[in-house]
Amino acid sequence: MAGTADDPIAELLTTYNELNGSTIEELHQEPSPLEFMRYVAKNTPFVVRRAAKGWQASRTWSAAYLKEALADETVNVAVTPMGLKSSNADSPTRMEGSGELVFAKPWEEDQPFPEFLDFVIAQENEVAASTPSEIRYAQTQNDNFRHEYVSLFAHVQPDIPFARIALDRDPEAINLWIGNSRSVTALHKDNYENIYVQVLGRKHFVLMPPLCQPCVNEQPLKPATYVRRGGNDDAGLELKLDSVGEGEGEGEGGGDGNVPFATWDPDTSGPNETAYSKLAEPMRVTLDPGDMLYLPAMWYHKVSQSCLDDDICVAVNYWYDMDFSGPLYPMCNFVRSTYMSQS
Amino acid sequence: MAGTADDPIAELLTTYNELNGSTIEELHQEPSPLEFMRYVAKNTPFVVRRAAKGWQASRTWSAAYLKEALADETVNVAVTPMGLKSSNADSPTRMEGSGELVFAKPWEEDQPFPEFLDFVIAQENEVAASTPSEIRYAQTQNDNFRHEYVSLFAHVQPDIPFARIALDRDPEAINLWIGNSRSVTALHKDNYENIYVQVLGRKHFVLMPPLCQPCVNEQPLKPATYVRRGGNDDAGLELKLDSVGEGEGEGEGGGDGNVPFATWDPDTSGPNETAYSKLAEPMRVTLDPGDMLYLPAMWYHKVSQSCLDDDICVAVNYWYDMDFSGPLYPMCNFVRSTYMSQS
Repeated sequence: MAGTADDPIAELLTTYNELNGSTIEELHQEPSPLEFMRYVAKNTPFVVRRAAKGWQASRTWSAAYLKEALADETVNVAVTPMGLKSSNADSPTRMEGSGELVFAKPWEEDQPFPEFLDFVIAQENEVAASTPSEIRYAQTQNDNFRHEYVSLFAHVQPDIPFARIALDRDPEAINLWIGNSRSVTALHKDNYENIYVQVLGRKHFVLMPPLCQPCVNEQPLKPATYVRRGGNDDAGLELKLDSVGEGEGEGEGGGDGNVPFATWDPDTSGPNETAYSKLAEPMRVTLDPGDMLYLPAMWYHKVSQSCLDDDICVAVNYWYDMDFSGPLYPMCNFVRSTYMSQS
Repeated sequence: MAGTADDPIAELLTTYNELNGSTIEELHQEPSPLEFMRYVAKNTPFVVRRAAKGWQASRTWSAAYLKEALADETVNVAVTPMGLKSSNADSPTRMEGSGELVFAKPWEEDQPFPEFLDFVIAQENEVAASTPSEIRYAQTQNDNFRHEYVSLFAHVQPDIPFARIALDRDPEAINLWIGNSRSVTALHKDNYENIYVQVLGRKHFVLMPPLCQPCVNEQPLKPATYVRRGGNDDAGLELKLDSVGEGEGEGEGGGDGNVPFATWDPDTSGPNETAYSKLAEPMRVTLDPGDMLYLPAMWYHKVSQSCLDDDICVAVNYWYDMDFSGPLYPMCNFVRSTYMSQS
């Protein structure tokens, strides 16, 4: 029934598209808390160009600077195999052999920061292309900036004032992301209001509102985790299914440990399309260094990046707890349940 | 399927109820624009007790004062028959004879204000109970306060500053409502952000969020209008079906001139219940003189009133255009379409 007048889901998507542009709003200075709250109220993203240009991080960071500043630090690194061209950490991935689509979590290990950074830079320059290799991405989303990287934390704002004042809460987590152009984050959504600040390199977002759930072909995927073969650094990575009960259990997976996850990629639209995918109008935005993005709660986002002179991509994001009261959260669940009940 | 775990509509209602109280939030001073915007963002009502106590209208108006101030004015009055105990202006009503449920619009006529007011007061005191009579309610919602009643407009605020600043727009309409305890407004919703201020008497609201559409038993009703029999003031009122094409056509009626309208009354829950009505948790609030209510866009509201010493009920409301962008409006349509497609 997709696309017909009698199909409530198709009508939902087309009505939304008619009333909302698919071009992101660009601001040239930070909004006031009230102006920000208007965007929160309509659950609509915006980008503030050059908002963080004056931050110490924007003015002083470079690959060399970070290597020096974190010379003695050990950091958590997400490792995935090279064969896939880009990182598939936290992505739908086919198991070797069975071909089963699973939710692949990266191998995580601590590495001396300088070694990690050299690897990332060498890979970006394709120096490492001749060796069987892997993709490394510092992407722990556990408030890492106020823990692992706390020595650099004074170089960014401790919060985003317009967001803290508007939402009347401090950030729940502040995360630093360091990788190269191989670091891709698959389409997913978070239950947070998110402020994303680019420091080095460029970040490319593909964004879709939460009501696009029927477009993304969410599937319950078995969780699997990469491990180093034989515990050996040079033997490559092997994807192993998690034991039942080990899965993170995001609460929507029906208690079987499966992870409900989007399997449609808006950049390669054919595979894994649903009957509704063609009705999605993804919003695309590229952040240059110093740009700031408001990514509203529950928006689907796919993130890729490209490097500039520094051969690394560095960004910071601020997660603020979303407000679960009001109609948005139940309505988004309703769209999902309605789609699931008819498919 | 209502009420089962596999029923998305039942799940929507119960999830909403779990995440939101059914008791209205009470403030004791007006919110700032930012605080107000937080309520707009979560589409959630609040009441500010005594907010308008200092307004000149609150301090000086009484039945006698209004009669004097508007001694020479003629005002538009909505007239409906007495037999129904309370006004059924803009209400689902059974036609005499056929018994068909139609959307009854009041007879509207201009009356000298003092004559109108005397009638309303006498009826409240039951002086008029012995004569075949009618219910009169000054309730034109066409920005009447800045037109018919403009001579009194300086006695209230020209707008609600926190709402004007937050929503970044002037009020679209400001309406004055004058009636007695017979004046009831049937359950309905408006596409406006609404600030309601009580001046004389008390107003009793029953409120339900827009996602309660599956609870209200919306039916496409033929529009009908009361007319005075033979054009004679004393011959009573007769309900006549509008000619096709004459209907106001609210855009949701399918172009046949029918008015889609809630037929469930949350105060007499049995009749016209749907399978979902029992899952509604109506929020009830009474406004005393000086109280101010924020009634969010698209909330269902039924309004009744009771008089205090003055034997009249007077209120003012400020309508601000709602923002149709963002997910709320399309999502509310989606709930409606999903319900309609399964029933």
